Amino acid sequence: MIPYQIIEKKSQGLTLSESEIKDFVLAYTAGNVPDYQMSALLMAIFIKGMTTEETLSLTKVMLESGECMDFTSAPGFVADKHSTGGVGDKVSILLAPILAALGIHIPMISGRGLGHSGGTLDKLESIPGFNVNLDLKTWHDLVLKEHVGLIGQTGNICPADKKIYALRDVTATVRSIPLISASIMSKKIAEGVQGLVLDVKTGNGAFMQTQDDSRALAKSLVSIGKGYGIKTTALITDMNQPLGSAIGNWFEMEESVRGLQGDGPADLMDVTYALGAEILKMSNPDLTQEAAIELQAKTVADGSAFEKLKRITELQGGNPDVLDKLSDYPRAKYSGAVRAPRSGYLAKVDTMALGFAGIQLGAGRRKITDSIDYSSGMYIHSRIGDSVSSGEDMLTVYSNDEKALDQVLAGGQDIFTIEQSPPEIPSLIRERIE
Amino acid sequence: MIPYQIIEKKSQGLTLSESEIKDFVLAYTAGNVPDYQMSALLMAIFIKGMTTEETLSLTKVMLESGECMDFTSAPGFVADKHSTGGVGDKVSILLAPILAALGIHIPMISGRGLGHSGGTLDKLESIPGFNVNLDLKTWHDLVLKEHVGLIGQTGNICPADKKIYALRDVTATVRSIPLISASIMSKKIAEGVQGLVLDVKTGNGAFMQTQDDSRALAKSLVSIGKGYGIKTTALITDMNQPLGSAIGNWFEMEESVRGLQGDGPADLMDVTYALGAEILKMSNPDLTQEAAIELQAKTVADGSAFEKLKRITELQGGNPDVLDKLSDYPRAKYSGAVRAPRSGYLAKVDTMALGFAGIQLGAGRRKITDSIDYSSGMYIHSRIGDSVSSGEDMLTVYSNDEKALDQVLAGGQDIFTIEQSPPEIPSLIRERIE
Repeated sequence: MIPYQIIEKKSQGLTLSESEIKDFVLAYTAGNVPDYQMSALLMAIFIKGMTTEETLSLTKVMLESGECMDFTSAPGFVADKHSTGGVGDKVSILLAPILAALGIHIPMISGRGLGHSGGTLDKLESIPGFNVNLDLKTWHDLVLKEHVGLIGQTGNICPADKKIYALRDVTATVRSIPLISASIMSKKIAEGVQGLVLDVKTGNGAFMQTQDDSRALAKSLVSIGKGYGIKTTALITDMNQPLGSAIGNWFEMEESVRGLQGDGPADLMDVTYALGAEILKMSNPDLTQEAAIELQAKTVADGSAFEKLKRITELQGGNPDVLDKLSDYPRAKYSGAVRAPRSGYLAKVDTMALGFAGIQLGAGRRKITDSIDYSSGMYIHSRIGDSVSSGEDMLTVYSNDEKALDQVLAGGQDIFTIEQSPPEIPSLIRERIE
Repeated sequence: MIPYQIIEKKSQGLTLSESEIKDFVLAYTAGNVPDYQMSALLMAIFIKGMTTEETLSLTKVMLESGECMDFTSAPGFVADKHSTGGVGDKVSILLAPILAALGIHIPMISGRGLGHSGGTLDKLESIPGFNVNLDLKTWHDLVLKEHVGLIGQTGNICPADKKIYALRDVTATVRSIPLISASIMSKKIAEGVQGLVLDVKTGNGAFMQTQDDSRALAKSLVSIGKGYGIKTTALITDMNQPLGSAIGNWFEMEESVRGLQGDGPADLMDVTYALGAEILKMSNPDLTQEAAIELQAKTVADGSAFEKLKRITELQGGNPDVLDKLSDYPRAKYSGAVRAPRSGYLAKVDTMALGFAGIQLGAGRRKITDSIDYSSGMYIHSRIGDSVSSGEDMLTVYSNDEKALDQVLAGGQDIFTIEQSPPEIPSLIRERIE
């Protein structure tokens, strides 16, 4: 196998064989192909695409590069939810404890921030001590006992994907249907789940910006899941503005806790419950949509979901007290606000630019080795369709990097489009793919 | 500057600004952008291309990343020749001493093997002790005194290009008109030459396989050179089979010496003299083509060109005795032959495959850190149009890696296409661009 020839073949738009994909990926995972060759191949795949067969081969080699979990001994349904990523998307942090409180087993393997989007692991790690690197046995036992365990690609789960995912994050090769599909599905299949719901984001803050692309991705994901015998559905949901108002790791954790305490933003709760309903209905096909939502709302009302989050935080080494005393969490040194330059209706939010502003503030990574400042972030104060007054705060920004803060504030007004007549409000849940 | 955003912009086929190109390239050169991000950008450029303005910006930042030489004190004409690369292309090793013997100053900065093609530096280094890493002052003095100095991108000549060139070699991003143009021309402009002839290879062993692509590259190169006030012409020459019969570093050095001793293959000598004639005519516009060739042939006949090669070898730390005693050079441990499977006419040579076979034998690099085995290589025994008999040796192969040798021998017959009727013989010098 000469890596050069495989890169060249794909750069010409030709189809790679299963053995070419396998040899290249396994050699990369073993450290025998360097990052710079893999990133060249990834860019060629990003631009030239992959056939369904190539995508399946990539999923297979990623899956088989490591071990698969076995939850057949679990007494109840085993399922997971995965989002394709966006800005302010903290659904997993609410949904995992809600479903666990309802007896569903959630062996959730999450990711870190990718491109402009945030990552569940980074958010969880904003809780002091929270350990997302449990060994697989500890995690397995935790899922059986507590019905939920929240980890990253600890241990030997899809090591090939783990290494490639980190590289895609910093080489602008994220928004690719075959690469996203293989990455997501290899991990989800390795979790050993019986059911899976995919939250495929669409809009200007999603990796797939058009409904057509999002639908193509959703179909690709669902077909791989079904091919492996997993009950799989997808919801295409809106990402033309952040979900909720908090962006940044601790900021989002705090908003999630408020959601579990019954004080969450409506859009965030709606998406959370809709995704949860998919899993509850897979587990019990007789359940109506309304009943599935009602069951979840009850775990919020009775505090059982929040207790589950605190319990799992404690069992994963985190300090659950910070979740009870949200306002004690340290704040970034500097803050400022982006103000509305004129009165009118908020018509558009440049959600991708918001995500990159978060990176600039310290809430995300520019390269693999960057560390994250959990206390940096933003609050967006209006949603599309809201009326705003000239001079009103649109965005409050926090950072420990004063220069970065100033830069974000200087460019901040470009993020918002204010118009004189009320805009069309994007619908939150667009389409269901099964 | 967020590298991710620049990579993404190019991956979408958009045009980068001069400052985006400059910031990215200088940050990479300074080590603040990692290899894996540059290789992603290179692949995006490779597939999506660059405008003329982007190519000029890239040439400029590469040139200005280092220092430029000044040969205005040279009493005679200062010029260079550059080839876009092929298999068995050892023209520089003959042409530099020939022109130096004729009083032209040749400040030649050459490259290493790139992709499937060989590199002049690697060939020179097959002479024990030959130092291609002279400091710029030593090299400058050598060119003034001896009329020729053969180095790599020693010191501070286009450091940005040097780093990018090494990366392109191993990421299949070589065959790109803007990347080739900027790389070649930044170095040649930095040499401080008055005249430049480009040997743009075309055919199945060239980076540009079609005459159209080769012409586009030649025009791009010539226009950049003229823009910088350098007399520049290009010859498009055939690379549908190796030049001469030797492939591999010492093998090619040996064949070059025989050429300077008056015993060179006709095709090699024809291309050498044609390129040399371009420079001699730039230096003296009254010279006819015939006289320009005659002058060069005389330096071979009277031994002055060979003496010049030995002299420069000695002054650059090499042992000139090996050039007098060619057969004393150590041979690779293993050898074998590829034989003609049937009688007929040699109709086609897969020249690219030959180049890759050379890499497999140890004569080239698969990744930056690989070292080269100078005693590995091949001799091709027939040229297109020659009649061959079943069982006749087509290719003799040498390597110190027995397994690699067996693999090359096993696939060797696929390199040659033998037909029953005489094929069309590709013309050697196709076109002149000025």
